[in-house]
Amino acid sequence: MSDLLYIPPVLGVAGIILAFIIFALVKKNPAGEGKIKQIADAIHLGAMVFMRREYTVLFIFAAVLTVLLYIGFGSWHTPLAFVVGALCSASAGYIGMYTATFANVRTTVAANQKGASEALSIAFFGGSIMGLTVASMGLLGLGGLYLLFGANPEHAEAIHGFGMGASTVALFSRVGGGIFTKSADVGADLVGKVEAGIPEDDPRNPGVIADNVGDNVGDIAGMGSDIFESYCGSMIATIAIASTMASSSVAIMASGAETAETLMFLPLALASVGLICSVIGILVVKVFSGSDPAKALRIGTIGSTLLLMLAAYLVIQYFGIHFNVWLCVVAGAAGGIIIGLVTEYYTGGKPVRDIARGGETGPATVMIAGLAVGMQSVVIPVLTIAAIIFISSSLLPEGAGVYGVGIGAVGMLATVGITMAIDAYGPVADNAGGIAEMAEMGEETRAITDGLDEVGNTTAAIGKGFAIGAAGLAALAIIAAYIETISRKVEGFALNISNPEVLTGMFLGGIFPFLVSAITMRAVGDAAFDMIKEIRRQFKEIPGLLEGTAEPDNARCVDIATTAALKRMVLPGALAVFAPVVVGFGIGPEALGGMLGGALVSCVLLALTMANAGGAWDNAKKYVEKGNLGGKGSDVHKAAVVGDTVGDPFKDTSGPAMNILINVMAIVSLVIAPLLVG
Amino acid sequence: MSDLLYIPPVLGVAGIILAFIIFALVKKNPAGEGKIKQIADAIHLGAMVFMRREYTVLFIFAAVLTVLLYIGFGSWHTPLAFVVGALCSASAGYIGMYTATFANVRTTVAANQKGASEALSIAFFGGSIMGLTVASMGLLGLGGLYLLFGANPEHAEAIHGFGMGASTVALFSRVGGGIFTKSADVGADLVGKVEAGIPEDDPRNPGVIADNVGDNVGDIAGMGSDIFESYCGSMIATIAIASTMASSSVAIMASGAETAETLMFLPLALASVGLICSVIGILVVKVFSGSDPAKALRIGTIGSTLLLMLAAYLVIQYFGIHFNVWLCVVAGAAGGIIIGLVTEYYTGGKPVRDIARGGETGPATVMIAGLAVGMQSVVIPVLTIAAIIFISSSLLPEGAGVYGVGIGAVGMLATVGITMAIDAYGPVADNAGGIAEMAEMGEETRAITDGLDEVGNTTAAIGKGFAIGAAGLAALAIIAAYIETISRKVEGFALNISNPEVLTGMFLGGIFPFLVSAITMRAVGDAAFDMIKEIRRQFKEIPGLLEGTAEPDNARCVDIATTAALKRMVLPGALAVFAPVVVGFGIGPEALGGMLGGALVSCVLLALTMANAGGAWDNAKKYVEKGNLGGKGSDVHKAAVVGDTVGDPFKDTSGPAMNILINVMAIVSLVIAPLLVG
Repeated sequence: MSDLLYIPPVLGVAGIILAFIIFALVKKNPAGEGKIKQIADAIHLGAMVFMRREYTVLFIFAAVLTVLLYIGFGSWHTPLAFVVGALCSASAGYIGMYTATFANVRTTVAANQKGASEALSIAFFGGSIMGLTVASMGLLGLGGLYLLFGANPEHAEAIHGFGMGASTVALFSRVGGGIFTKSADVGADLVGKVEAGIPEDDPRNPGVIADNVGDNVGDIAGMGSDIFESYCGSMIATIAIASTMASSSVAIMASGAETAETLMFLPLALASVGLICSVIGILVVKVFSGSDPAKALRIGTIGSTLLLMLAAYLVIQYFGIHFNVWLCVVAGAAGGIIIGLVTEYYTGGKPVRDIARGGETGPATVMIAGLAVGMQSVVIPVLTIAAIIFISSSLLPEGAGVYGVGIGAVGMLATVGITMAIDAYGPVADNAGGIAEMAEMGEETRAITDGLDEVGNTTAAIGKGFAIGAAGLAALAIIAAYIETISRKVEGFALNISNPEVLTGMFLGGIFPFLVSAITMRAVGDAAFDMIKEIRRQFKEIPGLLEGTAEPDNARCVDIATTAALKRMVLPGALAVFAPVVVGFGIGPEALGGMLGGALVSCVLLALTMANAGGAWDNAKKYVEKGNLGGKGSDVHKAAVVGDTVGDPFKDTSGPAMNILINVMAIVSLVIAPLLVG
Repeated sequence: MSDLLYIPPVLGVAGIILAFIIFALVKKNPAGEGKIKQIADAIHLGAMVFMRREYTVLFIFAAVLTVLLYIGFGSWHTPLAFVVGALCSASAGYIGMYTATFANVRTTVAANQKGASEALSIAFFGGSIMGLTVASMGLLGLGGLYLLFGANPEHAEAIHGFGMGASTVALFSRVGGGIFTKSADVGADLVGKVEAGIPEDDPRNPGVIADNVGDNVGDIAGMGSDIFESYCGSMIATIAIASTMASSSVAIMASGAETAETLMFLPLALASVGLICSVIGILVVKVFSGSDPAKALRIGTIGSTLLLMLAAYLVIQYFGIHFNVWLCVVAGAAGGIIIGLVTEYYTGGKPVRDIARGGETGPATVMIAGLAVGMQSVVIPVLTIAAIIFISSSLLPEGAGVYGVGIGAVGMLATVGITMAIDAYGPVADNAGGIAEMAEMGEETRAITDGLDEVGNTTAAIGKGFAIGAAGLAALAIIAAYIETISRKVEGFALNISNPEVLTGMFLGGIFPFLVSAITMRAVGDAAFDMIKEIRRQFKEIPGLLEGTAEPDNARCVDIATTAALKRMVLPGALAVFAPVVVGFGIGPEALGGMLGGALVSCVLLALTMANAGGAWDNAKKYVEKGNLGGKGSDVHKAAVVGDTVGDPFKDTSGPAMNILINVMAIVSLVIAPLLVG
């Protein structure tokens, strides 16, 4: 067994090396000259400046938490794991974003000089660096810590700190990046498209560079750390559940194996084979990329998932673990695909056309229709989550059911390498289109990048649904681990809904998702307001700007978005981290458990509603822009633009913050659990 | 004791008689002539036609349920209670609405002929008929059934059927009425105000009569049955909790009394004194109505609440019940006022001006700001509910805590007579204004009715917050009663969140509020779409309509709204009633309990978000219309109108449906509880 423990970190190192090789290949492609280079450099610089400032705030916050953890635990194990988790998450985000700002302009140049197939290759490889980095950093960091602490029961709980570090970074990246990207996007669109009547990504618009920077900091770095924390969270939770399982259950579950250690190692083993499946999937996409891009991406994703199911079967057989555990992996992996497909329907199918048709009677009916679509879209994904819980727990013996839920989450997330690659491909393609437009590279180039972007939008929608489902299951597993941890020390501990403390906690937990959504929506609204004023000012005060004879002051707009993001991300972050501490120590572990339950349900529901309403509005606008219902410039189009603008913070700021909020709350609770009963 | 049992039904009869006396007084006022009479008759007729058709559908649904209940229970007790509950609720709604359609036109005429003070009197008395009827029907129906079944433990559970009858009627009235009123409102506004540029309530607009009919069927009949079911639900639940309380707890709680019967009777006793307090409050409003209307309404409400606290102290002392039970009454009553005041702030204070200012950058920023306000507004009300739960259960001995929660809900709802009166006053005043506008009665009359309407909007907002808080607590008490009922028969029954069945149920429960919101929003959207097409058609095809020389075809619009409401109210109603049955019998009582928990949290959160966002958008529009930020006709105004239009189904259709949804699900579960374990 102990030799096997080296596999995850070693695979992690191999994955990172592979990512660097891909980066070197991407970088070899021509990066353009003159105006193109100038624009790409501005985006790269803006993104790097933001990241540096964001990480400075993050560093201070993390340093405070490290000290608090040291004081709380009186040992260096948990704080160390926290720091490692935060570093792994931050570097995954940084590497992914750094490389994406190289891939975007090279995609544009390839679209201009070599055609669609080559452009797809570069964009997808650009995204896959992020995918590989996320998966590899997880295996390296978590696998390494497991090697260090896993065998020693005294310090086994310290590993939870890794999840807390990853989640804290994720929350700041997601919220900060989300506020940045959407305040720039909303501001640039409202003044540029609606007021000045100039196209999207027009170089005269001072907010456009900020908008393109936002794609990188929000949709790449933010998304990367979001998925990273679910990925690691699901593994940590499953390890924790296995470690607290009664030995009678262990005996049934792992009849061929000696100890609970096999069950504890399984999530890492699954993630390891998942990384290999992802790499194969990435190669498959490359092979098929010559034909239909949408098909290539689909074959890659579904292929890796099927491969994972096969590989998981062999792994589980090898370890002599109960056959039904494999069914949990299958349920999780299949559930991820179902949720993704439902998301695709709601953000691409008939509902989108219904929303667009709502535009015939103005923006109000677009809003009503979109909100209804978002709310309705929760039904099947939540039923799927409920089914995974129910199936996993029915398949396994009494007392081991939650282990099945954890393994289901791991099964959904094991192929994160390719899922994340496809997710990150979207903003790279989007950026490539933006650069083509700004550099005025002509219709033909723009047509290619538009095609890539459109495919990216669909895959991004699937990725978002998947991220929510995975985050929900991961959080659930972490909550289960929290309950087990407390139960081990408190006889008869139970989260009974009729216990007033639990109930109070449930209501308190329900508040947070709504409050954090309100804060982040308002942050985007306020920052967009400032952005709009600045862009209007520049149009008015810079002579020749609208005529194209003068340059806009892009840096001012980047600065407005940066300042807003940094100022507004602290409160939601602090709320998420400290609320469990206050409730746990202030009222008690029962109230904290209830709070996690209430927050989980309402986070998942809000996240799905916001992500899908936002995605559907976005595509309804695109549907009209393709010439339907009057096309661009019609009243229906104007109404659809309003929907899209409201959808922006829904789908890219507040909605995704929900995934992380529940995971942060859950992992902080798990970390402090030993102190609550100590 | 047994003599006291006659008091509630006798008081109920007295209250109904008083309501009829007030009606006779209102009716004596002049009803106008010519055009005024014609308009008033059209509204009255439209409302009555709708009610008849709605009650026909309701009758069929109720008949099916009665048969199913008879089959399920094999006795006539529960089905009888169900029928009585449904009849009481339906007649309260019918009487309230019938009389309101007399009061509205008389308010207009009084405003024209006698001035503001007299007009306020009539409008408020018109509303108070509804208030008295709701409170009296509850005391008569529930008090009567308690007299019949209460003493016999074998049939005590049959009384739950009363709540189910009331809730079923409420759900249909609220959803049907809500769809009717908002499809008419949205349709009439979008074509009239935005497209044709004619004022609100202009007689040329064919949708205006339907809009005014909608105020009566949605805001009066719908609201009445909504509050009725919370009122009765809280009493039924508290009775059920007291009846299942362990005798050791009873001994501590009611040391001066012999049996649990005292504790069971307490909710009816509190409601009885509450009715008297309400009548006093109504008289107080009448006395102060000469000066400032807002002040008069406020003194009446807060005065009755203080009076109730005093009276409750005496009642609790008289029965020899634990002093802390009185503190639960105070917590509930005070909580209701806190929630109301918070609602007033969010729908009338700084947030409203912020939303209006969002209009400077278009409708999208109005939407974002409003949604953020709605989401943020949940914080204090939900904290208040959590505090009431926590305080009530800490004050009472172990095992009796949930009784305190039930009593808190009863305390909040006991003065329903005056709360409902003030609530119903709003739409009467609104209608009076509509009639004045349609009958072209001049600036001066319109100024008076506008003044009354404005006061009504604020009080209605407070009433809505109150209704949500009360419904949440009532549902909670019913859920507690459900758990107690099952626990009595199943040893060790517990709703443990870490039990996968409970967790599955929680996720399932979370779905329903979102699904029902989606269905009702979409129903309003679709019906408004048909309405808009019809109004546009009439403007185009009826020569002279826009010039005011031809009459619109009002009946067609009323018919569109009626058909849409009746067709679309069945699915949400059936979902709410049958979902608990399917989950309870299909998965089990644990899953059903979890479902109620998940649904409760998400219903309360969504209800508050929707009601407050809707109210805030409405008032932001009014703020602009008063001449701020450019005033009527400006771009800011157009943006604010979009917000208001989206807010319409939020605050008057989907939001209020949440209150009832959770109560229907809870009471159905309580009713079937004996069958689940039988």
